[in-house]
Amino acid sequence: MSENTIAGTMDSDEFLASLRALLGPSDLKVGREIPQAHLSDWSGESGGAPMALCFPRSTESVSKILTLCHQHRVPVVPQGGLTGLAGGAVPSERCLLLSLSRMCAIECIDSLSATATVLAGTPLQQIQEAAEAEGMMFALDLGTRGTCQIGGNIATNAGGNRVIRYGMTRELVLGLEVVLADGTVLSMMNQMPKNNAGMDLKPLFIGSEGTLGIITRAVLRLHPGVSGANTALLAVANFDTALKLLNFARRQLSDRVSAFELMWADYVEGVSALPSIKRPAMESAPMLVLLDMQGPDPEQDNAVFLAMLESAMERGWVVDAAVAQSQREATEFWDMRDAVAELLAVHRPTVNFDVSVPIACIGECVERIRAALEAAYPEMERFFFGHIGDSNIHLVTGPLPDDPAVEHHIEAIVYDLVRAYAGSISAEHGIGLHKKPWLSHSRNDAEIAVLKQLKATFDPFNLLNPGKVL
Amino acid sequence: MSENTIAGTMDSDEFLASLRALLGPSDLKVGREIPQAHLSDWSGESGGAPMALCFPRSTESVSKILTLCHQHRVPVVPQGGLTGLAGGAVPSERCLLLSLSRMCAIECIDSLSATATVLAGTPLQQIQEAAEAEGMMFALDLGTRGTCQIGGNIATNAGGNRVIRYGMTRELVLGLEVVLADGTVLSMMNQMPKNNAGMDLKPLFIGSEGTLGIITRAVLRLHPGVSGANTALLAVANFDTALKLLNFARRQLSDRVSAFELMWADYVEGVSALPSIKRPAMESAPMLVLLDMQGPDPEQDNAVFLAMLESAMERGWVVDAAVAQSQREATEFWDMRDAVAELLAVHRPTVNFDVSVPIACIGECVERIRAALEAAYPEMERFFFGHIGDSNIHLVTGPLPDDPAVEHHIEAIVYDLVRAYAGSISAEHGIGLHKKPWLSHSRNDAEIAVLKQLKATFDPFNLLNPGKVL
Repeated sequence: MSENTIAGTMDSDEFLASLRALLGPSDLKVGREIPQAHLSDWSGESGGAPMALCFPRSTESVSKILTLCHQHRVPVVPQGGLTGLAGGAVPSERCLLLSLSRMCAIECIDSLSATATVLAGTPLQQIQEAAEAEGMMFALDLGTRGTCQIGGNIATNAGGNRVIRYGMTRELVLGLEVVLADGTVLSMMNQMPKNNAGMDLKPLFIGSEGTLGIITRAVLRLHPGVSGANTALLAVANFDTALKLLNFARRQLSDRVSAFELMWADYVEGVSALPSIKRPAMESAPMLVLLDMQGPDPEQDNAVFLAMLESAMERGWVVDAAVAQSQREATEFWDMRDAVAELLAVHRPTVNFDVSVPIACIGECVERIRAALEAAYPEMERFFFGHIGDSNIHLVTGPLPDDPAVEHHIEAIVYDLVRAYAGSISAEHGIGLHKKPWLSHSRNDAEIAVLKQLKATFDPFNLLNPGKVL
Repeated sequence: MSENTIAGTMDSDEFLASLRALLGPSDLKVGREIPQAHLSDWSGESGGAPMALCFPRSTESVSKILTLCHQHRVPVVPQGGLTGLAGGAVPSERCLLLSLSRMCAIECIDSLSATATVLAGTPLQQIQEAAEAEGMMFALDLGTRGTCQIGGNIATNAGGNRVIRYGMTRELVLGLEVVLADGTVLSMMNQMPKNNAGMDLKPLFIGSEGTLGIITRAVLRLHPGVSGANTALLAVANFDTALKLLNFARRQLSDRVSAFELMWADYVEGVSALPSIKRPAMESAPMLVLLDMQGPDPEQDNAVFLAMLESAMERGWVVDAAVAQSQREATEFWDMRDAVAELLAVHRPTVNFDVSVPIACIGECVERIRAALEAAYPEMERFFFGHIGDSNIHLVTGPLPDDPAVEHHIEAIVYDLVRAYAGSISAEHGIGLHKKPWLSHSRNDAEIAVLKQLKATFDPFNLLNPGKVL
C-alpha cells in the first residue's frame, strides 16, 4: 500500500489500451459490449454507466488490473454472482467492473484438517457439494446457493439458514487472499482454527462489501457432514413462549438446533393462500415455529428430539405440533418458509426489510412496527418472519402505491423503531447503496469516523467500490 | 480520533498534577508506590520503569486519562489480571500503567437473549458463575479463570479448553466499548448475533493486545448451560489414527466434542512420574487422547458416547479405553492434562511453546521438532501435548542450561519448522514482547506493512502499549 506518486490521469483510451494488453480478448468487454446482467444486481438498484467489464483468471491478473486502475485513478466495482439485495455490486459511473466469475476452482478439500481452499468466483453450491463428497459440510447456506459466489458471500459476510448453529460467514473463514487498491496482494491464507500471531486482518475485509480490497481466494472451515434432519412445525401462543421454546430446545438438544424460524400469523396466512403451498392440518395459532435438528443419523436423534417436544408441550409452550414423518413432509414444511419469492410476486411492489434487534425485544419490536405501519398504511399487507435465534427479523410489506415518498416513509417508520431498540438496519444483507442513507440509525458518529478513516487508509483515492456503504 | 494539535510535552510534574486531579488518591500510585506485582506479568519478561499506576473506575475516567496522556505524549500500558504469557502487559519506560481491575461489574445477564454485559476488569470466573446461576454458560475457560480479566481475555483473543466447540474469544464477543488513543470512546455495544450494518470494527481490537485501543466494556455471547460431561481416556497408536478418531467423534457426536486433548508418550510419562498424578491402569501406547462430551444431561448422552467409542475400537483406532465412571475419575483424567504447572516446576528452567500448524500436519511436524531437538540437545527432556482439533501444539522442553544462546537456538529450531508448515508461532498466547522477534516467521511483509499502517492510523504517536507485537 505504498503511496502512489504518479500523478493520476483519467485518459480512458490509454487506460483501455493498457488493460487490453493485460487480458485476453474474451476477458474484456468495453462500453456497449457489457452484458445487461452486469449493470445491476438483484437489488434492482441502478448505478452509473461502466467503462468496461473484465474477467481476470488469476490473482496476479487482479493485481495488475488494480495497479493500472490505481495509476489511472479508475474506480473498480467487484462483482460476484450479483445476487446481493443491497446494491453493493451496482456499477459506478465510468468504473471498471471486475467480475470474479472466471476465478472458479476448488483448489483443495482437506477433510482431515476440515478445510477447503477455493477461488473467489466459485459458486457456493459447488463448494457445498465438494465438501459433501468428502463426508464434510460447508455450513453456509442461502437460497441463491447455485448462483452466488463465495467471494461475494465473504465480502458481504452472508448469513442464511444455519447461522444459529454455525455462525455467519465470518466464523467460517480461516484464511483469505485480498488484492488491495494499489495492487498489493495481501496473502493471509491461514489454515488453522487457532492463530494469535499478531492482529487478525481478515475480519477487516469480511463484510466490507468490496470497499477495502478485492477478495480472490479463501480457506474455509468445514464441519462434519450430516445426513438429514428432524423437522417439526410448532404452533405457539406468543413471542415470549417462542423464545422460551428456543432456549429450551437449544439446551436440551445441546446446541444442535440448526434452524428455528418463526413465522407470525400474517406470514402464515399469506403463504397459505399461495396455490403451491400445502399447509399441514394444525390448530391455528398466533405463530408457527419451524424447527430443524440436523445430525449424522436423524433416526438416532429422533428419541431426544421427540422427548424435547413432549416436555415443551407438557409445559404448555407448544399448542400443537406436526413432526415430519418423511423427507417429503419436511420439504413441505420448509416450502412455507421458502415461499417468500412467491409472496413478493403476488404483493408487488413491496418494501422488504432485513433487520435485527436484541433477541428478547423481538416480540415487542414487531408489534410496534406492525401497529405503526397499520396506522399509517391500513390498506397494505404486512408479513413478518425471522431467524429469531440469530436476532434477525424479515418483513415484507406491499403493494406499494406509486409514490416514492411512501417507500421512504415506511423505511423511516421501521428504522426509527429498530434504532429505538439499539438494533441493526441490516442483519445480513449489508448496506451497499440501498441502506446507505440509514447507516447512522445503527452506527454512531465515532464508528462512522473510524470507518471513514479505515477507508482512507486502505483506499486513499476512493477507487474501490466507491459510494457503497459510506 | 481527531488530530490533536496541542504540541506534545513531556513535563511529568505537570502531567502527574493533572492526573491527580482526575483520580481519587487511592486510585493513583506514583513511582515507588507502585506494587511489585504490576512490574511484570506471568511471562516473567522485564520492562521499563513506569511513571505511575492508575485504577480508573469508569469509561469516562479512562477517556479523560487517555486524553491527558495524548496531550502529554505519555505512553499507556493497559493491565488486566497479569496472567499473560507473552509479556503483553509489562511496563514500558516512563509509561502510565492503567489497571482495569476496579472496573469490575456484571451489568446484566440476559438469559433470553443469551448475552452478558460486563466491565473489562471482571474476572473470567465471576462471569462464568453469573451465567451458570441463570442456567447459561460463558464458554471461555482457562486455567487462570480466577485471576484473568475479561478485558485481557478479549485483548489477547484468549483460547483455552473449549475452543473446539465454542471457538476463540473473538467468536464469543458480540459488542465492545473501546477508548482510543486520543480519548475518544468508541461504543460498539452490539447485542445481536447478526449485524451487517457496515464493516464490523470489533475484530480490530480483539487480539490487538492493547496496541489499538483500551477495552472497557463488552457484550458476551452465552450458550445453554451444561450439567456435566462424558469423559474418556483413549490409547491410540499414532497421530493419523488420533486424527481419524477426532473426525469420527465430531461427526458421530454432532459437533458436541468439547475437548480432544492429545498427549504424546513423552508427556504421559512425564506427568505419570509426578507424585500427585494417578494414572489409570491402561495399556501403554504412543499417545493418549482425553475426550470430553459436555451436555445438559450426560446420562442421556452416555449411550451415544459409548456407541461411538465401541465403533472406534472395532475399527482398530482405539487400542485401550478408560471411560470415567464418576466425576472423581473424570477429574483424575483431567489432572494428567492439567499437571503442566508441576511439570514446569520439576524440569525448570524450561522453554515453552504454543504453536499451531494445519491439523493434518501436526503429527509429522511434532516428529520433526522432536528429532531436531533430540539431535541438538539430547540431554534435555521434551513433552508434547495439544488441542489437536484446534490445530494447537504445546511443547515444554528443559532443563535449560545457563546460556541465553541455547534458548534462542531452541526457539529457532521450533519456529523454523513451524514456518515450514505455514504454521503460527502463537496459537493462543499472543505476541507481546516475548515472540516479537519471531513475528515474521508467521506474517509476511505485506501483512506487517498493513499492521504498521493500522497502528499509525489508530495511534499516531505510538502511545498505546508501545513496543508490543510490532
